[in-house]
Amino acid sequence: MPRKIARRRVTRLFLDAPGRRREETLAAEEPLEIRLGHKAFSVTMRTPGDDFDLVAGFLTGEGVLRAEEDLVSMRFCAGEDEDGRQTFNVVEAQLSATAVPPDAGLERHVYTTSSCGICGTASIDAVAKAARLPGSPMPGARIDIATLLSLPDALREQQELFSRTGGVHAAGLFTMEGELLCIREDVGRHNAVDKVIGWALREGRLPLHDVVLQVSGRASFELVQKARMAGIAVLSAVSAPSSLAVELADREGVTLAAFSRGSSVNLYTHPDRVVPVSS
Amino acid sequence: MPRKIARRRVTRLFLDAPGRRREETLAAEEPLEIRLGHKAFSVTMRTPGDDFDLVAGFLTGEGVLRAEEDLVSMRFCAGEDEDGRQTFNVVEAQLSATAVPPDAGLERHVYTTSSCGICGTASIDAVAKAARLPGSPMPGARIDIATLLSLPDALREQQELFSRTGGVHAAGLFTMEGELLCIREDVGRHNAVDKVIGWALREGRLPLHDVVLQVSGRASFELVQKARMAGIAVLSAVSAPSSLAVELADREGVTLAAFSRGSSVNLYTHPDRVVPVSS
Repeated sequence: MPRKIARRRVTRLFLDAPGRRREETLAAEEPLEIRLGHKAFSVTMRTPGDDFDLVAGFLTGEGVLRAEEDLVSMRFCAGEDEDGRQTFNVVEAQLSATAVPPDAGLERHVYTTSSCGICGTASIDAVAKAARLPGSPMPGARIDIATLLSLPDALREQQELFSRTGGVHAAGLFTMEGELLCIREDVGRHNAVDKVIGWALREGRLPLHDVVLQVSGRASFELVQKARMAGIAVLSAVSAPSSLAVELADREGVTLAAFSRGSSVNLYTHPDRVVPVSS
Repeated sequence: MPRKIARRRVTRLFLDAPGRRREETLAAEEPLEIRLGHKAFSVTMRTPGDDFDLVAGFLTGEGVLRAEEDLVSMRFCAGEDEDGRQTFNVVEAQLSATAVPPDAGLERHVYTTSSCGICGTASIDAVAKAARLPGSPMPGARIDIATLLSLPDALREQQELFSRTGGVHAAGLFTMEGELLCIREDVGRHNAVDKVIGWALREGRLPLHDVVLQVSGRASFELVQKARMAGIAVLSAVSAPSSLAVELADREGVTLAAFSRGSSVNLYTHPDRVVPVSS
């Protein structure tokens, strides 16, 4: 099975002392090819592990999957390295008739999806169209400020891979009461989000209306898009959001919280879902 | 002209005090479409500004450009938003006869490049082939440990956008004596690297044999690949490297330094280019 870590001997140098050799633990990074039927659909660099969750979540973000029943099966294809070992780096997904297969040519679709489905325009309209954003209204679920502020630490405590390598992002799904439902780690922050959303799809939990998505890093346009596709109403990031992340969240009814740091948090859009302390 | 920042009113909530509204500065994120001739080649989400550097660097990383003369011209195409304003989000590059245009269909090429050119294999051989890695040997330039350790702070001091937004990555090119040649910031760390390499190409400085590339975040496989394509022999990261970054750097003769934090740094590959303190 694929390994999430790799061991490596390194030379550690110091400003004011002799260097020394020691062994370090690295987060593994390997390519994953996603196939639909027998055709290549996308390749992503990811940390091996939870690959079926990753594929299911990626396809949800692309608008191909909306519920568990859209997916018939997933399997690792035969793929061998030069020593004849199975690489576990190719996953083939079989869609059911209820899925929404990518339109136009596969290549075209991959082209758009690899970079968010926008063709030379800053228009959010074009983005929304390409991203197949659902038109359904977002729910009115609410979360207490104290609970929201507790999520980064709750996520951090469960980050096994980060503790060992210092080199991975994490995404977690929490209930509005702060209960952790699922956490995933990856060298790519988009992958970590795909993995938790894919977990939810495979558990029959989509749309994730009463769930907060907490991420360990920044909030980009793509993360807001992925949250929206999964029906997630509250996205909370430890670091900064980008301008386009805020624009999309505003338009799509997603509450975007960022700079969530212990005792304070910024709400960039739809702040009504967060219950402040009574003044 | 495109803006690097955006202003936004946010609600700041506190654990133990009433919330308040205030204005915040965000790092701008907008799509950039890169065209070769009149055909779309790739789309990336980036922070506007230094877009010609970004395009030149991206094309260098793809093996399309190797020197200044491979590029005839670049220009912003007409592209308007719904209010009829020029978006400056489409750049068209004209290649000269000395450039190496993407092989196979454009779509296929975009497909591979968006995710590092690997098709379902963990083999570095396949990676190297797809990435068009040059076969030329890497230089033996050396840098002093004290100089190497000074680069993260030197980079940080010049990060104007980060100071204002807290939400961008940076990449800097330094001489082996620690002199800053070029710094660029972007919401995407790959873009920041593309921008400094593109700057160097346009200045006629490729290959960058006597230069250190310092990045503000982690070292992924793709960053090592980009460094190698530009002839950079020393890549230094503030945070962790991934396993595949180390593998590629090892094979390609790149010195990979990471966890560069003030008084110590880890050298994962080819440590001989860094001169330690005398013991």
